[in-house]
Amino acid sequence: LTRIDSETRRRALGEALWRVVLREGIEAASVRKVAAEAGVSKGSLRHVFPSQSELLTFAMQLIHDEVTRRVAAVEASGDVRDMVERHLQSLLVLDPETRAVIDVWLAFAARARVDPSLRPLRDETHAQVRDLCRRSLETLRDQGRTRPELDLGLETERLHALIDGLAMHATLDPEITTPARQLEILSQHLDTLA
Amino acid sequence: LTRIDSETRRRALGEALWRVVLREGIEAASVRKVAAEAGVSKGSLRHVFPSQSELLTFAMQLIHDEVTRRVAAVEASGDVRDMVERHLQSLLVLDPETRAVIDVWLAFAARARVDPSLRPLRDETHAQVRDLCRRSLETLRDQGRTRPELDLGLETERLHALIDGLAMHATLDPEITTPARQLEILSQHLDTLA
Repeated sequence: LTRIDSETRRRALGEALWRVVLREGIEAASVRKVAAEAGVSKGSLRHVFPSQSELLTFAMQLIHDEVTRRVAAVEASGDVRDMVERHLQSLLVLDPETRAVIDVWLAFAARARVDPSLRPLRDETHAQVRDLCRRSLETLRDQGRTRPELDLGLETERLHALIDGLAMHATLDPEITTPARQLEILSQHLDTLA
Repeated sequence: LTRIDSETRRRALGEALWRVVLREGIEAASVRKVAAEAGVSKGSLRHVFPSQSELLTFAMQLIHDEVTRRVAAVEASGDVRDMVERHLQSLLVLDPETRAVIDVWLAFAARARVDPSLRPLRDETHAQVRDLCRRSLETLRDQGRTRPELDLGLETERLHALIDGLAMHATLDPEITTPARQLEILSQHLDTLA
């Protein structure tokens, strides 16, 4: 196989994995099920992903890329507060795809506790979201849209914890933590910083 | 066995389970390991907990009881803001025991996604914490310690998400989300409601 063929195949397997996760949850995403979904043999899938850890790591890598893509996709036009809010909205659970992303993230984070090999990717994704929170607050402060004496370190952690908590609640209790409620809370939170 | 013997034995097993979780994490807490820790045979443990799901459910029940105990243990004296803050502090990750509680909670919540039998206890624990957040905010509002027009539904979810997000971050990145930082953020959050 050339490198390109191999990449195409990995991407097709990633899409099959994602369909299984969306339908049945990450805990059910075994090598066997993903192979069946992708229409390849289990042995063939084991060739690419020797264990479920590699499969889960691949899913996490897709999430990492997706977060990067979403953040870059927000148009840098219009009011600065609107722009910052749209950036941060990309981290909330507003559709089934993002719910699956959070499921994978929580399962991956839980497994990383006992498998140190997974920690670099977990920590990198955590830092990526934290960095977006920090840059959002910096932008608002530099444009005079927050109190000037804002404690950036404290407010970054407060915003980051709020966003991750909302995402967790949206998968846990979608009747209460609806998309509309998440958007309202984020907006209210940014209001209180001004 | 009488009922009391059975209760004593379950409690001893619960303590053994807790030691394994503290030392190695919930993912490593197999029936085999907990049996070895408690000094009983694997068969004997299987008699009480037929599968890891029952073991995990028992750990969650202990957590549920512990949250109830902590909330009740806060003395209802002194300044109302201090009292509310102490109640809410009991939900933060300020020691290794609480870190283990959060580990178990996250693992249990992840498993409940694919095992519907675990959902009632998960939902009850989630609602227990939400209820504490709501009552805390009601108390502050009724004592004139918040803006009178506080949107109680929205602020309950914002506080609850913040606390759960902080707890998750404290297990994920204890270098940044330290006990002192969590206390500071909770205090700052309550300040902004006034």
